[in-house]
Amino acid sequence: MPVNKQIVLDSRPTGAAEARNFRLVESEAPSPGPGQVLVRHLYLSLDPYMRGRMNDAKSYAKPQELGAVMVGGTVGEVVASNNPRFKIGDKVVGNGGWQNYSLSDGGDLRVIDASRIPIQAYLGPVGMPGVTAWYGLNKIIAPKKGETVVVTAATGAVGSVVGQLAKIAGATVIGVAGGPEKCAYAKDELGYDICVDHKSPNFVEELKAALPKGVDGLFENVGGLPFETAARRFNDFARAAICGLIASYDGAPAPAIDLRVMLTKRIKVEGFIVSDHMALWPTALAELAGHVAAGRIRYRETISNGLESAPEAFLGLLKGKNFGKQLVKL
Amino acid sequence: MPVNKQIVLDSRPTGAAEARNFRLVESEAPSPGPGQVLVRHLYLSLDPYMRGRMNDAKSYAKPQELGAVMVGGTVGEVVASNNPRFKIGDKVVGNGGWQNYSLSDGGDLRVIDASRIPIQAYLGPVGMPGVTAWYGLNKIIAPKKGETVVVTAATGAVGSVVGQLAKIAGATVIGVAGGPEKCAYAKDELGYDICVDHKSPNFVEELKAALPKGVDGLFENVGGLPFETAARRFNDFARAAICGLIASYDGAPAPAIDLRVMLTKRIKVEGFIVSDHMALWPTALAELAGHVAAGRIRYRETISNGLESAPEAFLGLLKGKNFGKQLVKL
Repeated sequence: MPVNKQIVLDSRPTGAAEARNFRLVESEAPSPGPGQVLVRHLYLSLDPYMRGRMNDAKSYAKPQELGAVMVGGTVGEVVASNNPRFKIGDKVVGNGGWQNYSLSDGGDLRVIDASRIPIQAYLGPVGMPGVTAWYGLNKIIAPKKGETVVVTAATGAVGSVVGQLAKIAGATVIGVAGGPEKCAYAKDELGYDICVDHKSPNFVEELKAALPKGVDGLFENVGGLPFETAARRFNDFARAAICGLIASYDGAPAPAIDLRVMLTKRIKVEGFIVSDHMALWPTALAELAGHVAAGRIRYRETISNGLESAPEAFLGLLKGKNFGKQLVKL
Repeated sequence: MPVNKQIVLDSRPTGAAEARNFRLVESEAPSPGPGQVLVRHLYLSLDPYMRGRMNDAKSYAKPQELGAVMVGGTVGEVVASNNPRFKIGDKVVGNGGWQNYSLSDGGDLRVIDASRIPIQAYLGPVGMPGVTAWYGLNKIIAPKKGETVVVTAATGAVGSVVGQLAKIAGATVIGVAGGPEKCAYAKDELGYDICVDHKSPNFVEELKAALPKGVDGLFENVGGLPFETAARRFNDFARAAICGLIASYDGAPAPAIDLRVMLTKRIKVEGFIVSDHMALWPTALAELAGHVAAGRIRYRETISNGLESAPEAFLGLLKGKNFGKQLVKL
């Protein structure tokens, strides 16, 4: 049997996550039992929600056990199968975790069509991040033509899809991203009307100036100053979808919203997690696949090589060092 | 023509509203012009939203102009009519304001059936407060059978209807009210499972103890400590309808809700104002009238006598001195 490299959670972070919280272990890849398939992973998805699982506290994902393989979405190839639904060579998307091989009874695996769309897109715009964008934008914000929608982490795996779906819906879309390179990409490639650089020393003034008609929808991935600035510009009947608060995952306080403002302006704020809405995934994925195949949704990836690179790539993701979807090629 | 007494806003409050902010004026009742009707008011409704209008700042209602008659819902009798839709003697509900007579072109008037339901109920459970309760409970909280719903100002004009509708929906309903008399009424007459007295020195512990299964829905009329205590017990997928924040109308800070909690627990918080949803009023009013006529929704009134008594009754309402719907009999 081939060697299966795995990255396990070795210790919980105190404050910022660090490389020493992870440990590389090696063992033999397992053999599938009755009804099981063995998948060799080709790409591993790195996502901000994983930071929450590293804590022992209640977060929006269950805590990861110490010593267990880090959880994570994967695309791979079936290399052994005792399950009639899967044959050797099938490309599948699943939740194989931070390792080279995983066993599955097939319940979490979906065979993907690699002919129209690159397989790794099933971890991005046609996967969990894409459905996250689709749900928060369509089911919480529901932008009307001509409304103004703000997207933080505007070029990230989720934000980039939110921005493009909001443009398709006819909204004016304002992005917040870190650095001139990401902001140029947001405007030139993703179609944002304006992108404001949160690293600019005049960030607050620049974001305010980008919102002459206020904010009708806010898709929040970050928290912190971008949220506070956008929230001060909420129009009556504004809707905020709280998808992530990456600025506070390492322990910084999260922003709060004053109930008096919410009442006066009749604002809706709703936190959500895409895995609560599995019934909507097929609809969302079909729509997203159509947009990606037709080039209406574009995406960008940062790919690190080899399982050993995953911890560093993940820590970079938490600091915004990635550009688009962060993947690990295995 | 008879004398029309009116109460106008004489000055804006700095901090708490006071009697000197109001002024009584007298003039002749006007004559209806073409298409107009003259209504003699029988009852004036006093409602917390009026406090917001006394300020010059943006609130959830437009500011009231200085020197203008205070706005307010009224039921009355048509005493002169140049409008074919209304005949003398018709009982009507409208927005006549704090005065004995008002002119209307009929656009804001609705003829009411005084045979099944007392006319003043059209200012309470079968009027704006009832529809407010109906909208926030059904359209924002949407309680499921067996869920726990908390209602602050539980015996007030809005809260009393919320509690009874939530019981009809099969929820466990916990009220917060001021004093043992209101709490006894909440349980014995309105059907609350538990009512917690916010004047108790052990209020926080008592409310916590009343929520062993947490909070799925919160209908917020008050803000302050009741909100903060209930919010700490939010379950996953809790919904909070922000209807009023009477505890902070005189300038005290309103509570805030942390976005991290909203994300972790996938909570929805929504501010609303019933006048934004006029299309739903006929549905809501028909349902509420059925419940009131059948005795499924009970209500209580505090009635002060004569227009001159309105300012003091209104200031008492802001301090919770009323018991049920606050009316002025004219």
